[in-house]
Amino acid sequence: MGRVYNFSAGPAVLPEEVLNEAAQEMLDYNGSGMSVMEMSHRSKPFQEIIDTAEADLRDLMGIPDDYAVLFLQGGASQQFAMIPMNLMKNGTADYIITGQFAKKAYSEAKKYGKINVAASSEDKNFSYIPDCTALPVSDAADTIYGTKYKELPDTKGKPLVADVSSCFLSEPMNVSKYGLIYGGVQKNVGPAGMAIVIIREDLIREDVYPGTPTMLKYKTHVDAKSLYNTPPAYSIYICGKVFKWLKRQGGLEAMKERNEAKAKILYDYLDQSRLFKSDVNPKDRSMMNVTFVTGSADLDAKFVKEAKEAGLESLKGHRSVGGMRASIYNAMPIDGVKALVAFMKKFEEENL
Amino acid sequence: MGRVYNFSAGPAVLPEEVLNEAAQEMLDYNGSGMSVMEMSHRSKPFQEIIDTAEADLRDLMGIPDDYAVLFLQGGASQQFAMIPMNLMKNGTADYIITGQFAKKAYSEAKKYGKINVAASSEDKNFSYIPDCTALPVSDAADTIYGTKYKELPDTKGKPLVADVSSCFLSEPMNVSKYGLIYGGVQKNVGPAGMAIVIIREDLIREDVYPGTPTMLKYKTHVDAKSLYNTPPAYSIYICGKVFKWLKRQGGLEAMKERNEAKAKILYDYLDQSRLFKSDVNPKDRSMMNVTFVTGSADLDAKFVKEAKEAGLESLKGHRSVGGMRASIYNAMPIDGVKALVAFMKKFEEENL
Repeated sequence: MGRVYNFSAGPAVLPEEVLNEAAQEMLDYNGSGMSVMEMSHRSKPFQEIIDTAEADLRDLMGIPDDYAVLFLQGGASQQFAMIPMNLMKNGTADYIITGQFAKKAYSEAKKYGKINVAASSEDKNFSYIPDCTALPVSDAADTIYGTKYKELPDTKGKPLVADVSSCFLSEPMNVSKYGLIYGGVQKNVGPAGMAIVIIREDLIREDVYPGTPTMLKYKTHVDAKSLYNTPPAYSIYICGKVFKWLKRQGGLEAMKERNEAKAKILYDYLDQSRLFKSDVNPKDRSMMNVTFVTGSADLDAKFVKEAKEAGLESLKGHRSVGGMRASIYNAMPIDGVKALVAFMKKFEEENL
Repeated sequence: MGRVYNFSAGPAVLPEEVLNEAAQEMLDYNGSGMSVMEMSHRSKPFQEIIDTAEADLRDLMGIPDDYAVLFLQGGASQQFAMIPMNLMKNGTADYIITGQFAKKAYSEAKKYGKINVAASSEDKNFSYIPDCTALPVSDAADTIYGTKYKELPDTKGKPLVADVSSCFLSEPMNVSKYGLIYGGVQKNVGPAGMAIVIIREDLIREDVYPGTPTMLKYKTHVDAKSLYNTPPAYSIYICGKVFKWLKRQGGLEAMKERNEAKAKILYDYLDQSRLFKSDVNPKDRSMMNVTFVTGSADLDAKFVKEAKEAGLESLKGHRSVGGMRASIYNAMPIDGVKALVAFMKKFEEENL
């Protein structure tokens, strides 16, 4: 079989150009006579790889100089503990709970202090983004935590923390509005096994929660520039290639246009379909993860199976939601979305 | 340049066969139409990859059924915290300090309880393995911690914990003698960004150190079979290929013979050289990491530089020790060791 269109929510599709380069360099990176997988993390060629990756990411996102960029292991799940362990000076934080992962982050944070739910959309299975214009921010709160927002909440001067795993590098964002931004890279950026953390320098502290492991202190990694111990070197290398690819595409403004165009094709079809429908509040729809259902679990299963046979992979929805989910990240070409809609139309005709 | 002989201590040389396979499968793993980097960790093909990797590792090492095998992020450095957080029921452990990393592990463990130094070779810059035949084991000790041993210490019935990063899969070991074995994979097994942990089931506990992050509880990962969150999928895939390669080489008995033969070539030369000498106690010499010096820092630097020009890479010793270090892990072919010795002979003639 040739390459499929892979709608997996993560690990997810990567640009073919990046994979081709990685394959070509597998036995000899840039004349070094070895694979990046075999290269000492203290070597000059690797230092150049990690420095270039950081510089390109700073350039793409316009990261201000007073923010540190970290390449860390443990994925977003480890951040659920690192954030409260490192950031809660007064032992208090407010959380905005907009999905399963925000809920996990909230549960983990409760180990380390007094956590308030400032807003939640769990009442409707996270199908909308709660109104955050007049958030009941706790006076004592060290941070306000949430996942992607359409409109940034008014945090009344408290540092805002955001999990951007699902929308990382899919559009420009104003980094200076946040205290800390993090995301697992396995959705929109690179291979699983790494999180990127962007943290404002005044939030990097020595006096963290008692008993915080050295590896879970941001300061450890900031001081060592992500080389405190052997880093996830191959992931950094692939992410670096993706950053270069994004720059060749025209940067994040261009990606936003492309991503909006892709999402529009799918939502326009969904809005007029007599078989498929989207359960998400239209104004809160994600550009990256498009969920839809037929209304029948049997028909949903049939759709996923037949789509797979047609080379449209990993369309099954998350266990907690059911139905279908098409993740159409940066690396999903517009032709993949068109192929999906064409297949949905055919399926609709055959099964209505 | 073609492939060099890479003597890096880690990340380190991998079998060329493994890299060739990985390159070939980069855009389409086994007819899936996608790279392993792009594959959902909840998909059937990935489940097969991780299951096969675990089964092959169990087979290679003869891991008993009452031990769990975990593929975790964070490297050995994260284990320095996880071990005391999870294993110290009584808050006490004895440590055997035989190197820089054992010392780091000891410093980290002190955060979580009363840690005794049962033995140490720091007095002579870790150039020998302390006598562990009559170890002063604390009555209250939960575990005895150390790195690689030639003779296992008598732990008086306490669980023995060992960091085997440097000798992982280089020879057979009797897993049942240990409570927990762990190692970063980036030396002898696969790409950086993963540790393998082999833990006896009775040591997996719910009532860990207060405030232990969910991601740092062994139970989290045992219950989820290393799939609690997105795992370092590509590392698992490459390690799985290395396990298959090791089986094709004849398993760990055969690797031990090969590794002994390789080390002998180098030590035999060192023992008669008039320029180079080894500082390590002969009975405690490592089969994997061969350190040597000329006695002159300038000449050491000249050697490292000229060796590099001759395609013999990463021979510079660790910052804390100086001199030279040739790591000759499983994937270093015997021809690489012969080439190194030939170069050393030539250098000796030219510089004596």
